[in-house]
Amino acid sequence: MSTARFGISIDEILLGKFDRLIEEKGYANRSEAVRDLMRDALVEREWLQEDGETVGTVTLVYDHHTRDLSDKLTEHQHNHHQAIISVLHVHLDAHNCLEVAVVRGSASEVRKLADELIGTKGVKHGKLVMTTTGLNLV
Amino acid sequence: MSTARFGISIDEILLGKFDRLIEEKGYANRSEAVRDLMRDALVEREWLQEDGETVGTVTLVYDHHTRDLSDKLTEHQHNHHQAIISVLHVHLDAHNCLEVAVVRGSASEVRKLADELIGTKGVKHGKLVMTTTGLNLV
Amino acid sequence: MSTARFGISIDEILLGKFDRLIEEKGYANRSEAVRDLMRDALVEREWLQEDGETVGTVTLVYDHHTRDLSDKLTEHQHNHHQAIISVLHVHLDAHNCLEVAVVRGSASEVRKLADELIGTKGVKHGKLVMTTTGLNLV
Amino acid sequence: MSTARFGISIDEILLGKFDRLIEEKGYANRSEAVRDLMRDALVEREWLQEDGETVGTVTLVYDHHTRDLSDKLTEHQHNHHQAIISVLHVHLDAHNCLEVAVVRGSASEVRKLADELIGTKGVKHGKLVMTTTGLNLV
Repeated sequence: MSTARFGISIDEILLGKFDRLIEEKGYANRSEAVRDLMRDALVEREWLQEDGETVGTVTLVYDHHTRDLSDKLTEHQHNHHQAIISVLHVHLDAHNCLEVAVVRGSASEVRKLADELIGTKGVKHGKLVMTTTGLNLV
Repeated sequence: MSTARFGISIDEILLGKFDRLIEEKGYANRSEAVRDLMRDALVEREWLQEDGETVGTVTLVYDHHTRDLSDKLTEHQHNHHQAIISVLHVHLDAHNCLEVAVVRGSASEVRKLADELIGTKGVKHGKLVMTTTGLNLV
Repeated sequence: MSTARFGISIDEILLGKFDRLIEEKGYANRSEAVRDLMRDALVEREWLQEDGETVGTVTLVYDHHTRDLSDKLTEHQHNHHQAIISVLHVHLDAHNCLEVAVVRGSASEVRKLADELIGTKGVKHGKLVMTTTGLNLV
Repeated sequence: MSTARFGISIDEILLGKFDRLIEEKGYANRSEAVRDLMRDALVEREWLQEDGETVGTVTLVYDHHTRDLSDKLTEHQHNHHQAIISVLHVHLDAHNCLEVAVVRGSASEVRKLADELIGTKGVKHGKLVMTTTGLNLV
């Protein structure tokens, strides 16, 4: 096993919170903690590899004051307007929005759209639920 | 906002897999992807603390022809009407419904309501996304 | 002009509220007030006669404890599941629900579905907004 | 609940038109149709009184490519985030959006917010449905 090294740039406040979290969790250092998060993400990915028609919900939390963010999210969504059934938008407070998009399409299309939305810079938290059209489940 | 920087040491194979994952997900760079994983871990932490307000989305798929099921789900939801901000209902076909409820409250309240809904006999698939009010995340 | 006469059966509480309303409005008697409501309904109908693809929103308020009501509404909606894009459900209190359905189809189909939903016995208040796909408007 | 009964005298031609209308709308009988008109009149009345809480739905259609429009609408909505329960957003096509906001508050507050949203430059069509919390209706 050969070891690589790379650098992360990060907002100081976020890093402070993360440091407190990993101290609570008892990690020896940041590398160890980040590696665990990476492994988790890879495992999750494996579970999402099947294809076929599916339905998913994408939950996003973001600050609508973040420059250009709403526009980017709306643009992504309209580019997939045939797949997005609709979006429920909740104004959590004067800054924070929660959106849940209901998306229907091939598993890979749903995943791709979710990745685009969740990965948009400025989104604070995002999560895809892959569910089902219900047709194959009793 | 001031930016910090730190280094991660990591096995090369794991890093290779992670790079493929974030390329698929469309992240611009590793920092962006790692920051998202950190935020996710912080959100999860919020949910383990009993104080403070959380927000969740509960996705349910069910056949509305299942005897008494819609009534039971509506009844559960109205019993918590102060916590449920609203529910998006999509008629997937002549039988199957998808519902996403946006719920706000203490972690235990949201989790309990999600468990009740998902555990209702006849629900084909259900999933709670534990997300955040956004107040504690940069 | 020849005059007809017919009888209305009505809950006493509702009639009491209506009597106070028409007294406030200065109507001479109930017949006069009801005739005005009928004329209004006919005028509204005239405005809704055009056809072509359209989008509408149907707002409904009802008590979900009313026997069989939720089931009937869900059934009506699923019978038109291709036209109903989705439904937003808000739990107003432990009894009352507000639903807004977004419906797309020919004007006559949208109108028919709205009529069915609004006319379902037990719905307290319902209203159709005929809007537009936006395609023919600048 | 006890039922009252009263008679309506009416011009035959008007009654004939009304009968055709309620047949089209699928009402079981005239009483049912007249009761709905009465409830509608009572809801309208609620909106003219300054005390008490009302609920409205605001339907908007707009092109999200119109410069700054989404931002302005989001900003208006967040300024009233306590009144807006949630917003359902449907991507009609690559350009056009339909939004329905569910708003709760005093009649004047709901009306003011609706006017602001509908009056925002670039909104193609907008309509407020003044409905009810359901508390005062049988």
